[in-house]
Amino acid sequence: MSNQPNAPAPSLPTLSTARIETLADGVFAIVMTLLVFDIRVPIQEQVSQTGLLNALVTLMPNMISYVISFVILGVFWVGHHNQFFYIRRSDRTLLWINIIYMMFVALVPFSAGLLSRYGSDPLSIVVYNLNLIGTGTILFFHWVYAVRDGHLLGHALDPKVDRLVRRRILTPPVFYSLAIIVSLINVQIALILDILIPILYVLPSNLDRMLRVRPEQRSS
Amino acid sequence: MSNQPNAPAPSLPTLSTARIETLADGVFAIVMTLLVFDIRVPIQEQVSQTGLLNALVTLMPNMISYVISFVILGVFWVGHHNQFFYIRRSDRTLLWINIIYMMFVALVPFSAGLLSRYGSDPLSIVVYNLNLIGTGTILFFHWVYAVRDGHLLGHALDPKVDRLVRRRILTPPVFYSLAIIVSLINVQIALILDILIPILYVLPSNLDRMLRVRPEQRSS
Amino acid sequence: MSNQPNAPAPSLPTLSTARIETLADGVFAIVMTLLVFDIRVPIQEQVSQTGLLNALVTLMPNMISYVISFVILGVFWVGHHNQFFYIRRSDRTLLWINIIYMMFVALVPFSAGLLSRYGSDPLSIVVYNLNLIGTGTILFFHWVYAVRDGHLLGHALDPKVDRLVRRRILTPPVFYSLAIIVSLINVQIALILDILIPILYVLPSNLDRMLRVRPEQRSS
Amino acid sequence: MSNQPNAPAPSLPTLSTARIETLADGVFAIVMTLLVFDIRVPIQEQVSQTGLLNALVTLMPNMISYVISFVILGVFWVGHHNQFFYIRRSDRTLLWINIIYMMFVALVPFSAGLLSRYGSDPLSIVVYNLNLIGTGTILFFHWVYAVRDGHLLGHALDPKVDRLVRRRILTPPVFYSLAIIVSLINVQIALILDILIPILYVLPSNLDRMLRVRPEQRSS
Repeated sequence: MSNQPNAPAPSLPTLSTARIETLADGVFAIVMTLLVFDIRVPIQEQVSQTGLLNALVTLMPNMISYVISFVILGVFWVGHHNQFFYIRRSDRTLLWINIIYMMFVALVPFSAGLLSRYGSDPLSIVVYNLNLIGTGTILFFHWVYAVRDGHLLGHALDPKVDRLVRRRILTPPVFYSLAIIVSLINVQIALILDILIPILYVLPSNLDRMLRVRPEQRSS
Repeated sequence: MSNQPNAPAPSLPTLSTARIETLADGVFAIVMTLLVFDIRVPIQEQVSQTGLLNALVTLMPNMISYVISFVILGVFWVGHHNQFFYIRRSDRTLLWINIIYMMFVALVPFSAGLLSRYGSDPLSIVVYNLNLIGTGTILFFHWVYAVRDGHLLGHALDPKVDRLVRRRILTPPVFYSLAIIVSLINVQIALILDILIPILYVLPSNLDRMLRVRPEQRSS
Repeated sequence: MSNQPNAPAPSLPTLSTARIETLADGVFAIVMTLLVFDIRVPIQEQVSQTGLLNALVTLMPNMISYVISFVILGVFWVGHHNQFFYIRRSDRTLLWINIIYMMFVALVPFSAGLLSRYGSDPLSIVVYNLNLIGTGTILFFHWVYAVRDGHLLGHALDPKVDRLVRRRILTPPVFYSLAIIVSLINVQIALILDILIPILYVLPSNLDRMLRVRPEQRSS
Repeated sequence: MSNQPNAPAPSLPTLSTARIETLADGVFAIVMTLLVFDIRVPIQEQVSQTGLLNALVTLMPNMISYVISFVILGVFWVGHHNQFFYIRRSDRTLLWINIIYMMFVALVPFSAGLLSRYGSDPLSIVVYNLNLIGTGTILFFHWVYAVRDGHLLGHALDPKVDRLVRRRILTPPVFYSLAIIVSLINVQIALILDILIPILYVLPSNLDRMLRVRPEQRSS
């Protein structure tokens, strides 16, 4: 990991990003997996009264919440992952930005659970969106700090890519802020906004073209 | 990880598959470990009434369910693992196929728990098999997408291997679909089918011979 | 990971052991961490009746069980870890031996919980020791399979090391079998045996000298 | 991982530190993520009585405890992480020091939970601080053992760095011991001390300058 076969000075190793990525992947894996605990196998009493089919139909909102939370965590994982395409070194500040990022990511199951149970109360929408705005904002500072003077980058960064990345990371917090404002007027529309926002991020973007290797380089 | 000592252009790194694999291994490790929570240490009351031996005998169905679920998750882990023998690069689409794969894998404890408690109801067999069909189908699209035009592969893919892999990944979904049909006629036979299918995948296959290194290459 | 910069045929990669190790480390990390759930913060009622000190004293057996289980899992983790000093390639059979190994490792919290609650019943000692005998035996087959014809080894294996490793892996199952026999006569002595066995494995051995790098090689 | 492209003797591999780091990252990721379970979504009864806002206000102490525990675990993770900037090889003793370190780290949620529920009792402050003193002390021995005769280091260690690291690792145990003494006189001041100590460790230090790569080395 991060050993540099072509590095000019092998005697001068640097703080690699490997363990940040392992810790982050661990936190994401656990948070994602624990989401399934919100979908409980229905108890005997309920099944004997209403039948298994009705009991399973009751679980549909939990199922939808499971899928949406999984996708949101996926968006944050992919965003974090893609940054490390450029970031190749770390320092204390970057480690701590990551720990705070993990702190917000690990809160998602709580605020998603709050939303799925009290979705009709605008306060639950505010808490949920504040959680996601916080996560996105820290991811933004993560990028800004890392590219600041280039000492953490593995190779030069095209300013065009930099601009694209910044815009892409800042878009969800803007939409989530909009959802908070909308929730004060109409809770239903705010909820629909919250469901639609992550879907935008699953679609490919201009950014991907720059991260993609062309077939003719396949030989390596 | 994915550093390429023989790569012609070290200044042009690519999105590696390392973090996909770390995330997937994390999710599999957690899902597998959490299965043990279905085997609870018997409570004092039960033991003082029936004795420890009888209390442990009561746990036998949970024990069998533990072993079967572990093996099924093992099959999906090995299948995922073996694909990355060929896949060496990733892009946004591959990341998302993996996240959706994880979403289905993390559901296995739920649908296995449903089956172990309501096994006599064909609906629980349908849900369980739909979960496994979904997981297998996404694993199939994972492979199809990755080999599509070769830009994600680390080295050339023998068409014979491609055909073998496709057939092997598609076989369980076919069998699990059969189990659904059978369950509508006879629940017991469907359950036996579900127990037998994963065992087929523990046995070595033609595919292994191609992934195996011959002893004369051992010198490296 | 395990890419071989000095390999004669870089175009012929092999199934690495990286993901086996990541999965195993994940399972061990989760099993170890979940042990702490057996040490519960005492509830308000208990504390107001007996005081916090007495409530904490009540937790001492759980504390001892926590330490012992952690050490046993440590022994199995170190044993697994050290094997991969030699094993550098994998195949389907090795993957499955590992999955079955994980299956036994993940059962340790259950059988340790059984022992800590029903330690006076010889049956709990039998179950606990059978779990550990099973884990040790599979670790033995893991080694035997991997060194069988050398195709999974990264470098030649000294027959003297092979004999030492085999003896070391087989010793705990022998002692644990002894503990089962003793438990039928005297439960207390069997329990003491079970506490002492893992301690033997924390001490350095002849084997370590062979795995240790001499200071003059430090320059690399 | 730990393959050494520039090593003079590729046929003499060494026990790498990769799996220690993976296990540690796994334990830290799980312990951090499980902290969120202390922040429960308020139940329907409470919300219908007092309103959602009041129910969320009740969660503030759990929220503060979540942030502090996360930061403390972060401090221990960063401390462990930075040591492996120098440590590049392992042996049985180092593996076991790490397992005992994990044993203390995994106890943090328990002793933090004890503190958040019985913070007015000096005994809970003693237990909490003993846990952190133990963790810090083992991290100290981890460093002392690893640098003892240099056989586990990847490159030479500047004695100035050694002294800085030792002082930095020993400072928290000294402060936590002070907190124990203070708790016997005034519980409130001890609690404030416990909140302030980890914050000191988030700030950059002289040590970071030595771990940081200068921009002109960026080319590698």
